Formats: sequence, C-alpha cells, structure tokens
Amino acid sequence: MRDKIGLYTGTFDPMTNGHLDIIKRAAKLFDTLYVGIFQNNQKEPVFSAIERKVLFEKLLLACSNVVVIVHEADLTVNVAEKLGVTALVRSVRNAQDLAYESEMIYFNGQMTGIETVLLVASPNLQYLNSTRIKELARFGVDVSPWVPELVKIELEKKFE
Amino acid sequence: MRDKIGLYTGTFDPMTNGHLDIIKRAAKLFDTLYVGIFQNNQKEPVFSAIERKVLFEKLLLACSNVVVIVHEADLTVNVAEKLGVTALVRSVRNAQDLAYESEMIYFNGQMTGIETVLLVASPNLQYLNSTRIKELARFGVDVSPWVPELVKIELEKKFE
Amino acid sequence: MRDKIGLYTGTFDPMTNGHLDIIKRAAKLFDTLYVGIFQNNQKEPVFSAIERKVLFEKLLLACSNVVVIVHEADLTVNVAEKLGVTALVRSVRNAQDLAYESEMIYFNGQMTGIETVLLVASPNLQYLNSTRIKELARFGVDVSPWVPELVKIELEKKFE
Amino acid sequence: MRDKIGLYTGTFDPMTNGHLDIIKRAAKLFDTLYVGIFQNNQKEPVFSAIERKVLFEKLLLACSNVVVIVHEADLTVNVAEKLGVTALVRSVRNAQDLAYESEMIYFNGQMTGIETVLLVASPNLQYLNSTRIKELARFGVDVSPWVPELVKIELEKKFE
Amino acid sequence: MRDKIGLYTGTFDPMTNGHLDIIKRAAKLFDTLYVGIFQNNQKEPVFSAIERKVLFEKLLLACSNVVVIVHEADLTVNVAEKLGVTALVRSVRNAQDLAYESEMIYFNGQMTGIETVLLVASPNLQYLNSTRIKELARFGVDVSPWVPELVKIELEKKFE
Amino acid sequence: MRDKIGLYTGTFDPMTNGHLDIIKRAAKLFDTLYVGIFQNNQKEPVFSAIERKVLFEKLLLACSNVVVIVHEADLTVNVAEKLGVTALVRSVRNAQDLAYESEMIYFNGQMTGIETVLLVASPNLQYLNSTRIKELARFGVDVSPWVPELVKIELEKKFE
Repeated sequence: MRDKIGLYTGTFDPMTNGHLDIIKRAAKLFDTLYVGIFQNNQKEPVFSAIERKVLFEKLLLACSNVVVIVHEADLTVNVAEKLGVTALVRSVRNAQDLAYESEMIYFNGQMTGIETVLLVASPNLQYLNSTRIKELARFGVDVSPWVPELVKIELEKKFE
Repeated sequence: MRDKIGLYTGTFDPMTNGHLDIIKRAAKLFDTLYVGIFQNNQKEPVFSAIERKVLFEKLLLACSNVVVIVHEADLTVNVAEKLGVTALVRSVRNAQDLAYESEMIYFNGQMTGIETVLLVASPNLQYLNSTRIKELARFGVDVSPWVPELVKIELEKKFE
Repeated sequence: MRDKIGLYTGTFDPMTNGHLDIIKRAAKLFDTLYVGIFQNNQKEPVFSAIERKVLFEKLLLACSNVVVIVHEADLTVNVAEKLGVTALVRSVRNAQDLAYESEMIYFNGQMTGIETVLLVASPNLQYLNSTRIKELARFGVDVSPWVPELVKIELEKKFE
Repeated sequence: MRDKIGLYTGTFDPMTNGHLDIIKRAAKLFDTLYVGIFQNNQKEPVFSAIERKVLFEKLLLACSNVVVIVHEADLTVNVAEKLGVTALVRSVRNAQDLAYESEMIYFNGQMTGIETVLLVASPNLQYLNSTRIKELARFGVDVSPWVPELVKIELEKKFE
Repeated sequence: MRDKIGLYTGTFDPMTNGHLDIIKRAAKLFDTLYVGIFQNNQKEPVFSAIERKVLFEKLLLACSNVVVIVHEADLTVNVAEKLGVTALVRSVRNAQDLAYESEMIYFNGQMTGIETVLLVASPNLQYLNSTRIKELARFGVDVSPWVPELVKIELEKKFE
Repeated sequence: MRDKIGLYTGTFDPMTNGHLDIIKRAAKLFDTLYVGIFQNNQKEPVFSAIERKVLFEKLLLACSNVVVIVHEADLTVNVAEKLGVTALVRSVRNAQDLAYESEMIYFNGQMTGIETVLLVASPNLQYLNSTRIKELARFGVDVSPWVPELVKIELEKKFE
C-alpha cells in the first residue's frame, strides 16, 4: 500500500513543548512526517528559518521518520502537493481554533482535495504558544517549563 | 514500517451520508480501517447490529481496506487494543463536539496512550445525524438527500 | 407586494417575558406574525395548550397583527407551508442555541426552502426559560420579575 | 401596513457568493432591501466603492427590490434612520460571529431601538470571506468556485 | 472586617481529584469554606450523602477552614442565606459550563444578590467528572489516576 | 486569619459602568481590593494613567477598601506578588473571554501559584468596552447610558 505521508506546518518561532508533543504524536500516524517551517517574512522573527530548522533537527534526532523542511511563502497545499502528502496535521485547543481550522480545511479541500487531521492539544500543554513564550522571555521569566532546554538557552541568548 | 490501523466507532442506526463521507476519507489515512458498530443495548435500535453490519458491507464494497465489525458493550479502548489500532477516528462539527471528544481523548489517552484523529465534517453534511433522520422518516419525510438509497429503502420498510 | 408572514413556535409552558419580547420585536418585522403553540404531548405540561392560547391572547391584545394558533404534533415546516409563511422566527442566546438552530435551519431549508430569521435575546432576558421558571415556582419563589403578572397568578394557582 | 425595509451593510471588497446568497434570501423578507457599501477609508481597498457598486448592480439586476447604496464613514444606525429601515440584516456563521453581532445589536438597539435579524450562512458558503478570496487570488488561485464570474474576471485584472 | 464565607456545592458522587483541587484553591480565598453535599434524591447515588460526607471529612482533615455539610433538596441560595455566605464557588471548564453557570448566576443574583466566583479547572483535571469515573469503575478500570486512594477503595467495594 | 487581598487590573481608558460593577462586586469579596491601571505605553491613550487614576478615585470614594494604583509595564503577577495579593479578579462575558483568561490563569499559576477568580459580567453591562465607547464618543454619540456622568463629561472634552 502507498506510504502515508503527513505535513505539519507552522512558524515555530520558537518551538515549544506543545509543538514537540504534536510532532511526536503525529510521527506515529504516518510513515513519513514533514515538519514545514514557514519563512515568516512579514514579521521579524526572533530565530531565522535556518536557526529554527537546526533547532528542530537537534530536538527530533530520535524521530527517524520526521523530516524538517523550510519553505518559502507559498500556499500550504502547494507544498503538500509537491511532497505527495496524504494529510495535513493541525493541533486544536478550543472552539476558536476549530473555527479557524474548519475554514482552512474547506479551502484546502476545495483547491486540492487534501485531507487534514486534527490532534487535540494535550491538556497540560494546551496554553503554550510561541508569542506568549517570547513575551515572558523578554520579561526575564524562566521559560524552561514550556520549551526544550536547548530552546531556552538559545532564547536567553537572543534576549540578553 | 508497521501498518497504520484506524478504528471508527458509532451506533450508526442508521448510517448517513455523513458517516460514509468520514469512512471514505479515513480509509485513505490508514492501511486498514475498522468500522466498529456498537450493539447499543440501552435503547431499542431501529436496525439490529447485524442489519447495520450488512448495510455497511454493501455500501462499502468499493473500500477494500475497510473492515466492518460489531462489538459488544465494551470500552472502545479495549476493542482498539485487541485490534492493534494506531488511532481512533472521530468526526467533529462544532464546539460542543470538540468538548465531548476532548474528554474522551483525555480518558482514552490516560488508559492506553491510544491516539485519536479528528476529521472535520464536510460543510454540506455537518448537520446530518441518525436521530434527526429517524424522526423525519417517522413523519414520512423523504430522507434520500441525507442517506444512501439502500438505507432509505430499509428505513421506509421499518416505518411502514 | 406579497404580505410578509412570520411564524414563531414553541411550547410556552408558560410564556415568559423573554417570549413576549421576541413576539413584540418580531411583530414589527412582518405584516402578520403567527405564534404557534405546540401541544407538547410527550411531557405532561403545567398548562394545557388551550390555557396557553388563552393566556397569550390576553397578553397580546395590543399586538393587532399577531395570531395565536395551537398545532398538533407536526413538523414546523408543514405548519409553515399551510400558513404561507415567509420566514420562521427563532431566538438565540448563545453558541449552543446557534448550533441547534443551524441544524434545524439546514433541515427546514432542505425540505421546503423556508427561511429562518434569528433574533438575539435581549441581554436582561436571555437567561429566562420556562423550565427554570417552573422549578422556581415549585420552590415557592416569586417569579414576577420574569413572567407577566397574569402568568404569575395562574402559575401560583397550579402549584398551590 | 407600513413597508418593510431592510439594510445589509458591508465592505464587499469583493462580493462573494456568500454575500449574494444572503442578499437574495434577505430580499424575500423585505419590501425593499438596501445593500450598503462602506467606503472603507482605513485600508486600501482592491475595488473602489464605485466599482463595487457597479459590480453589485450588474449582479443583482434580477432582484427588483434591492437598492445598492454607498455610504460615507458613518454609524450604520444613522444610515438606517435616514432610510427608514425596519431591520438590519447580518449573516452569522459561528459562535464568534454571534458574540460580535450581539455586541453590535446591543449598542444599535440602545441608540435607536432598531432591530437586527440574523441569517445563518448556508453550509457550503459559510467559510467564504473577502480577505481569504483576495489572498488566494494574489497567489494565482482560480477563485471561480467562490465568487461570481464577473467578480473573478475583475479580480484577475487587479492582480495581473 | 466581616468574615469572608464561601459555599461550594455539588453531588460529589463520588468526589474526584478535580473537586478536591477546587476545594483547596477556594479554601485560600475565604475565612470559612462550606462544602455542601446535595442529597441527590432523584437518581440513586452510589454513595449515600452520609458516606460522601464521611469521605470528604477524611480527605479534608488538613483544611482547617473547610466545613462539610449535607443539605436537603433546597435552592442553593436558600442554603447560602442561612449560612451567611459571601459568595458561591463554581468550577468552569469550557464554554458550555460558562453558559450554564451564567444562567444560575443570573437567577441567584436576582433572587438574593448573592455573588458567585468562578474558578477555572486546572488543565490536567478539567475532564474529570463523577459520571465518567463511575462508568469506568463499572468496567473494572483502575480509577486511581483521577480520585483519591480512599475513594478508589470505596468505589471498588461498591462495584464488586 | 490572613487578610484577603484582590487585584483587578486593566487599561480602563476610560472606565465604563461595566468596570465599576466588577469593582463594587469584587470589593465585597476581599478585605482590600487593588485596582491596577496599566500605563498602556503601546497605544496612545485618550486619558493619561494619572487622569484615569483621578477619575477612579472620585468614582470610588464610597468604596473604602478599594485602592487605586498605577503600574508600569510589568507582568501582572509581579505586581501581585509585591502587593501580597490573594487572588486576581477578572471579568468574563463569553467563550472567547474564557479561552483568553484560561491561558493567562495557566501561565500566572505556573509562574507564581497565584489564584484568579472570574466574575461573570452582569447581563445588561456585558457588551460595554472602552474601545466601543471611544468610537461612539468620536461619532458624537451620547455615551451616558454606559459610563459614569463624570467620565462622559471628560470624554466629551477630549473629543471636542
């Protein structure tokens, strides 16, 4: 049977324990899971796309079927088609997330028929998001409960 | 790599176009997809579990990787463990569904670590549910826009 | 131009200030507004359908374009078709109401193409509902802040 | 009896099949339906207000009781009062929309007592919105499933 | 200044780690916190009200300002008035809970002016509820991750 | 027993009847209630922090246990720790508010263990917010139904 291929995209500036949890869970669902890092040209990122890619690769060494890619500003469905993806992977935490994802699923489905699977964020990780982590790091808060040690160290270097 | 196995359970009394849509979409995500019909002992079903199994098998003839099973009253996770399931499949339509599924996912995950993937119901099928279909059929409404022709015929026989 | 005809249905056992507010607001939108009282055969009502009709007629004397009707157990759309209704009127208070009404609107629209207009319940009336009013009246609470004086008197007679 | 007059306002930059569906449904509820195009001075629109007015007039030729107007930056209730409007018309898709509209209805009602009727967006049109359509058109996606042919052609000219 | 007195009511059949978390958090907000156990006459409880009271008293020995009471079927506000309560305490997990509590707060406030404070359930306890715990215990699942050891033992005795 | 101390923070530019309602309700729950005015450096406020402090002090003269403070840009939990606060006070109106507050509660709890109590906004005040009030005042609308007379006068001076 054809290989099952997943794609999980995001800005990941920086990756949190929440992102890593979704990646590890999704990696079990597919033969290959692509993690796609958006360049995020519009806002000035804290970490460049290449820095984020290097961080992910270090953090995901043990996940042999995960492949980290960086992609230019493009529609996710275009990236997915080039990679022969079976389904997109998205995380949802609450009703607002579901409304947003439902809209994206509609348009992605209409354009290419691609499927999307939603994973519900783990209860103790559901409030993590990169924006809040950066805000707290800027205020000098120790962010080690919410991000991998490696990310914490790099984040502190950025905000010194 | 290990085969990916899905399990989609429900009462399916009767199956609607919404159920069939989820099954066809989920069948593409897994090497094998089990469709598990609950016996539904508490309320008197319109179709017996065996009748529902026969209906599904006729309707899913073209889906070669879908296997229909009937299971006794048991926790879904117990059925899933016996079948070696990779992930449960559930459909969500709105915030209430998400809240309900999040609770089930929490308990299922705590008990066995099993994963659940959510598929968002297709917009034009999102309001379909077996209870409403039966109510309308009882009032003599033609339910053919919402269920397969075969189900419509069998339902009319039941309510004659 | 063709007359605009509305239909607002419910059990109204008993009618609250919330129901009357919706009726008065809806009466301005249509040339004729029907208020349809369901017989409510399944549960034992506190007021019979005829008692509810008499109460509404007294309370709505000043609304010259409102017509109160009682209808047998039937699909609302069937009643609406017989009356030549332009649109059904429904009140919504929150997300759960909207989810419920969206399902009804879908099926009603599919069966007959009939339109439904939603009115958002007034903030200070949004929590009123017949079930709670009856529960409080049974406990001997003075329900006059939430129902017309006439209803309060009749309700006290019932629960003496 | 006094004529029933509706007002449906928006930026409509550009109009989608979703907007047209609401207009056609609302046109049946009122003797006259005004469609009010906001100038949208704050952000640079793709189509000028006049271009949008011309597009709507072409698209709504068959709706003899619909009148398209452009209005300067003003409170909607002020426009409604000048036009003698019976009720504002708004479309809702989900809980977030309902929360937003409920706030507007509260303030509009407090200022002028004007009524608002909500129409639930049709299931297969509920995810359409002008912002997404423009984003997709900029990426070169064929937007003909979601907007009238005329709008698609004009949009392509803008993004050439 | 007048003592601050809280009241947290429920059926608690049986108490879960979620209930205990709310009680311990609420105990810090008030000089005295009453925990009110409803008799729950309508459905057959697994534990009698007295059994539940004894369990709570053992589990809350360390909380010197918590007083456990059993109260007959009565409106919570009546109980609160007799106890001179400053505020009711309720736990919320999601939008449905908030809608339910908002209705109760409205009626309680209208009847007596009593205040209600909401505590958001802790993320890793938010899905716990007595109904699910009993269902799982009936299926022979080890419920020790979700209830105190003492409750687990007593529950197993009931379902032997 | 240790004094109960609350902290209710916001931008309050300007304070509305909704803010005052929450403050008066919260003042009954605590021995001392701090009202903390954020400097709001990012956007140009209509009233300076000092002006807002003076306004609040005039409006809250009768609330002897309320103390108004201005605080620099800092994490709320840091301010709370310096003040020895028992609990933060927040107002919620709907599901979106609850989702936002749940995230803040999670991070605040993780950082310091501080508690947060939610008060549900009163039904007839739930739609009030400073942004809308300012927008309406700019359009020359009389805002006296929604803000204290003193605020209305000062607001009109600002927008003359």
